[in-house]
This record gives sequence, structure tokens and C-alpha cells, in this order.
Amino acid sequence: MSKISKVPIEVSARHIHLTKKDFEKLFGKENPISPIKKLSQEGEFAAEEKVSLIGKDKRIDDVRVLGPFRKKSQVEIALTDAYHLKLNPLPKIKVSGDLANTTKILVHGPKGMIKAPCIIAQRHLHCSEEEAKKLKIKNNQIIKVKISGKRGLIFDEVVVRTNSKFRASVHLDTDEGNAAGISGKTFGEIVK
Amino acid sequence: MSKISKVPIEVSARHIHLTKKDFEKLFGKENPISPIKKLSQEGEFAAEEKVSLIGKDKRIDDVRVLGPFRKKSQVEIALTDAYHLKLNPLPKIKVSGDLANTTKILVHGPKGMIKAPCIIAQRHLHCSEEEAKKLKIKNNQIIKVKISGKRGLIFDEVVVRTNSKFRASVHLDTDEGNAAGISGKTFGEIVK
Repeated sequence: MSKISKVPIEVSARHIHLTKKDFEKLFGKENPISPIKKLSQEGEFAAEEKVSLIGKDKRIDDVRVLGPFRKKSQVEIALTDAYHLKLNPLPKIKVSGDLANTTKILVHGPKGMIKAPCIIAQRHLHCSEEEAKKLKIKNNQIIKVKISGKRGLIFDEVVVRTNSKFRASVHLDTDEGNAAGISGKTFGEIVK
Repeated sequence: MSKISKVPIEVSARHIHLTKKDFEKLFGKENPISPIKKLSQEGEFAAEEKVSLIGKDKRIDDVRVLGPFRKKSQVEIALTDAYHLKLNPLPKIKVSGDLANTTKILVHGPKGMIKAPCIIAQRHLHCSEEEAKKLKIKNNQIIKVKISGKRGLIFDEVVVRTNSKFRASVHLDTDEGNAAGISGKTFGEIVK
């Protein structure tokens, strides 16, 4: 454990990415998507619109739609949510966009419903190629990130995802954020 | 990171420990507690009885009562549950039995209700003094435990709790278990 570099940590609550077509099925053709908050990655935003995820005999309401529209719809939840909804088989732990062989889940909107693939997001570090160079890491590399505090831990299996539009930030889901006792703005350390 | 020792990992779902008096308030004096499953630590059991935890505008049902009765009632939940119930202030991260200055929560049973202190359990390793000796660790020592797999990580801040009745086992809550991708019987490694 030698060189250490600080990176911001963000915890993502359960959310859904939608195609334009699926958005229209859920919210109607007459209503455009309504951005209400910019997210840390350029161009990404939280929308006013929310959906419900429907499980066997339980549901989770108020699940935020994120924009802009994507080429494929995708639900991202925490394992706690998956157990609550009694999804069987459980969604796979995957990087965003890799939707092969994962569970589909029923999604309700005010105007209709869809079935969408559902994943547990693999924890990852977004950064630009330039930042990656400074941090001495590469796209697709698996790194360790240390969180300090009363629930301090070292996350292994953090995959690096570089893109010229990205800004350095580790993305965790709520199970991971809560396991590490993270609330609000936090920094982690890349541990080698 | 030199010497490594394997230890079983157990994930505890949200639960409640009760005094006899509080049990009677919730379930009535005529009904004795009904053990249905032995737990790994000697004498401990899951009971048939379940309670509901009541938050601001949400509730969590089917929360298991554990026995035997204790000197103080105590609710143990995950941070995910605490956010869901909108507990404010959040319960403290504490070792079991340390109930000073933590949030109280409303608990409903079929025959009545109580207010009980609520904690987020600090992750810990139970073991006997003899096992501790073999593992070269001591009561109250803070150790690191490594979990392997797709969500591999190293938990820091694991407190050692020795007692002649204990059997070696790391106890995590569901946020921690899910963050580490643990399902079913798993082993971790004490990392020094």
C-alpha cells in the first residue's frame, strides 16, 4: 500500500434510465422529460418523473428517472431492493449498459407499464483519460478504494471507466454507501 | 498483510431483543415466547413473534423477535431501514448493549406498543477466549476481515467480542452483507 490518491465518492439511489419510446409508454407522448437537477457527469440529469417497480407481492414507489434518454432502458437497484421485491433470479452485478442475461422487472408509470432489464451496478470509478493518467490507472482496470471512518473499509473490485466527458468520481449503490457509513460529500483513497 | 485466518460470516437481518416486560406489552401476558430456530451463538434463538417498526410515514413489518429475553430491549436495523423510516436523528452505530444517546423507535405488536432504543450494529467478530488466542486477537481489538468475490472488499473497524459461550463468527448487517455480495454460508479472512 504505497501511493494514495483522493477521489470523490457518490452514492446512487435506485433509478431508471429510459429509451424515448419506453418513456412515452410510461408517461405519455404529450409530456416531455423534465430535468430538475444536474448530476456530476456532464449532460446527465435527474428528472421530475418517477416510476414504481413491481415485485412479487411488494413494490417500490418513487424511483427516479434519469436522463438523457439512452439506447436501452435499464433499472439499477440495490441488492436490498432486489430481496425486498423477491426478484428471482436476483439481478446480476454488472457494469451499466451490460444487460445480457439479467432479470427483467415490471415498471409502472402514470400512463402505462414496461418490462425493463434490471442490474445491480458494479461499483466503478468514472474519470477522464487525463485524470486516469494522473491517477496512474487505466480503463477497465480493477482498483481498490479506501473509505475511512466508523465504518471504514476498502472496496475491492472497483472498475475504472474512462471517457473524455467523465469527471473523477466513484459510484456506489446505497448498500455500499450505507455499509461504509457514507452520508453527504465524501472522499475515498485509491489504494495500490 | 501476512497471517490470514478463516472465519465464518453471518448476515443479521433487522431484529429486536426484548425484556420480558416489553414482550408482554407487545404480545400479552398469556403468550410465552416461541422459539422456532436456534442461532449460531449458544442459547440464542429466533422466535415466531414479529413486530412492526413505525417511522414518520413509513413502517417496516415482520421484524423478528430474538430470544432469550434481555435486560434491555433493543432494535437493530440497517442504515437503509433507518433512511426508509426517516428516523431523525439516525440511530448510532454501536456495539450491541450500548444504548446511550441513540434514537428511540416506536414498536407495534399485536397487543400493544413500546418505544425502544434503536442501533445500527457495529460489525463484530464473536469468539471464545480460546479461539481469540488461536487467532492471535484480543477482546475489543479492531481487526480487518476480507471477503472475496465479485463484490470483494476488506471490512475495517470489526470489533472483537470474546465470551466463553461464543463461537467464532463475524456478524454483519444486511447493508454490509449486500455490499459484499454475500448470500448463504460464507467465510472471510482476518487480515493483519
